[in-house]
Amino acid sequence: MKSYGIGIDIGGTKISMVIGTAKGRILARREIPTLKHRHVRACVQKLIQNLQLLMRETGLSKNQLRGIGIGIPGAVNRAKGIVPKSPHLQGWKNFPLRRVLTRHFGLPVEMTNDANAAVVGEKIFGAGRGKQHVIYITVSTGIGGGLIAHDRLIEGKSFVAGEIGHMTIVSGGNRCPCGQSGCLEAYASGTAIAADVRRKIRQGQGKSLVRRLAGKQVTAREIGLAARGGDRLALETFQNAGHYLGIGIGSLLNLLNPEIVILGGGVFKSAPRAHWQAMMRSAKKHAWPEAYRAARIVRTSLGDSVGNLGALALVFMPAKSNDLARS
Amino acid sequence: MKSYGIGIDIGGTKISMVIGTAKGRILARREIPTLKHRHVRACVQKLIQNLQLLMRETGLSKNQLRGIGIGIPGAVNRAKGIVPKSPHLQGWKNFPLRRVLTRHFGLPVEMTNDANAAVVGEKIFGAGRGKQHVIYITVSTGIGGGLIAHDRLIEGKSFVAGEIGHMTIVSGGNRCPCGQSGCLEAYASGTAIAADVRRKIRQGQGKSLVRRLAGKQVTAREIGLAARGGDRLALETFQNAGHYLGIGIGSLLNLLNPEIVILGGGVFKSAPRAHWQAMMRSAKKHAWPEAYRAARIVRTSLGDSVGNLGALALVFMPAKSNDLARS
Repeated sequence: MKSYGIGIDIGGTKISMVIGTAKGRILARREIPTLKHRHVRACVQKLIQNLQLLMRETGLSKNQLRGIGIGIPGAVNRAKGIVPKSPHLQGWKNFPLRRVLTRHFGLPVEMTNDANAAVVGEKIFGAGRGKQHVIYITVSTGIGGGLIAHDRLIEGKSFVAGEIGHMTIVSGGNRCPCGQSGCLEAYASGTAIAADVRRKIRQGQGKSLVRRLAGKQVTAREIGLAARGGDRLALETFQNAGHYLGIGIGSLLNLLNPEIVILGGGVFKSAPRAHWQAMMRSAKKHAWPEAYRAARIVRTSLGDSVGNLGALALVFMPAKSNDLARS
Repeated sequence: MKSYGIGIDIGGTKISMVIGTAKGRILARREIPTLKHRHVRACVQKLIQNLQLLMRETGLSKNQLRGIGIGIPGAVNRAKGIVPKSPHLQGWKNFPLRRVLTRHFGLPVEMTNDANAAVVGEKIFGAGRGKQHVIYITVSTGIGGGLIAHDRLIEGKSFVAGEIGHMTIVSGGNRCPCGQSGCLEAYASGTAIAADVRRKIRQGQGKSLVRRLAGKQVTAREIGLAARGGDRLALETFQNAGHYLGIGIGSLLNLLNPEIVILGGGVFKSAPRAHWQAMMRSAKKHAWPEAYRAARIVRTSLGDSVGNLGALALVFMPAKSNDLARS
């Protein structure tokens, strides 16, 4: 029975891989650093070795495995199976990862964008089970998203659909790393939270926060911890970010009328409760009542494994392209 | 052969109906005023009589007709086949239009939101033919939209998907008739254009425009004609509206990565060229290059018949729900 699969989550700093079941139970896990530039081939060799070790550890043979799923940052062309251009993966661009892995293991390999993988993971293993319309939003350094409508992953014409972080929510507003201004990411990402605090500190605000952060990097994580510790400026900053995130969610509710919106990503790990509350108020305020009523808004149920489980879920997607209805 | 169909476009002021072919050729057309409140039953009687007249005029019998398609403003629950609550259709709420028409004509009846019908019309008969990812945007009094991704109409959980006009593009911005603020509709609709000019006139701007509009209502149409005639304030107002429309389109490109975005609605009929140009510049500026490159942005090819042809297209949608791939 081919009721096991491999899920690989490729990130900017590490590659983590699991063997798991068709129900999303993880049997074993390994992790290697993401080598870049001219070390890419060596990194892929190491990946292959570690996959072999995983199989040995779990005692599973190739013919018990259904396939390999891979989540990667960037616009992955599923048809081609190559690594896309991504600032997080310098030197990996155009690497024929699917061909190399297929040749080595003789298994089908499915690749997609990491946020797309996450929404498939939620749909097959997580909070999106049994739902036709699912949105996954990841809020960390940047903001990304995966969209499922009518049981189908929306990939778009050139596989760049789901760029939730780059909806314009404040015309003419803050500069975004993407080069535009006013993007959701420029207001609600971890990077935006840190930049907002740095700007306020430069303006002479937040003396107590400055003391608290002394010697530390000003990151969303540290600011979140300060907010949880009662620091006012940190708290307000997170409330603002939550408010803007809610605006983005409100627009998505009006546009796609999902049943569930699932939130993951590092920012939620250190955020104060007020962040979530501000987000919910703002989502409600900016959505049509019908659209708001139709949707639950929840944290990811897959926790830190969402990357791996998303990749694993790709293996268990129904065969016919990306129609997830029969899963 | 059932190669003909009826397409009914129900609007706030008139109901227009056609008999057409599976290729979208209109054979005959009739129109009646939309009666409201306690006259709804009389209006439906009149609708039925006119449909019978259409059949007589074209010499077609029931068994040559594939069915009846209906486009209606508001959130139409296709499963129920009843008229939704809509400010444009006072007194029609919950009217079991599908049941009444099915009983009378013995034909299948498909109902959906008018903008959804329009995008199906474009996909089956118009500029969206052969495209998997199609967005239709109508810009008139308000702004509405229909979304097709992977050959499937996105209706959402409670049939309110596609509310393009109520994406927030200016956080904390202009009041929108929907009760929120900063919606695309509050910046780029015909109503917004007229409101913008009225505000500027109150502030003492646009003396020449005031003279030109003397005795006329300040409508987007009149402002458009003035802009085409070279009036600066009118021109600037349209350029602004185009700019904001482009922001909305940019967000949609990033989110859904369509192959084509099709624009229709009254505003384009009187708008100066600068409106379209500003829209295109802004769409390009606010979209990812990959997403922008993937999409053509065009005017509707169905002209004034888009409402009827959209409704007619519903009849020729593939049987299995709303999967348009095999059409």
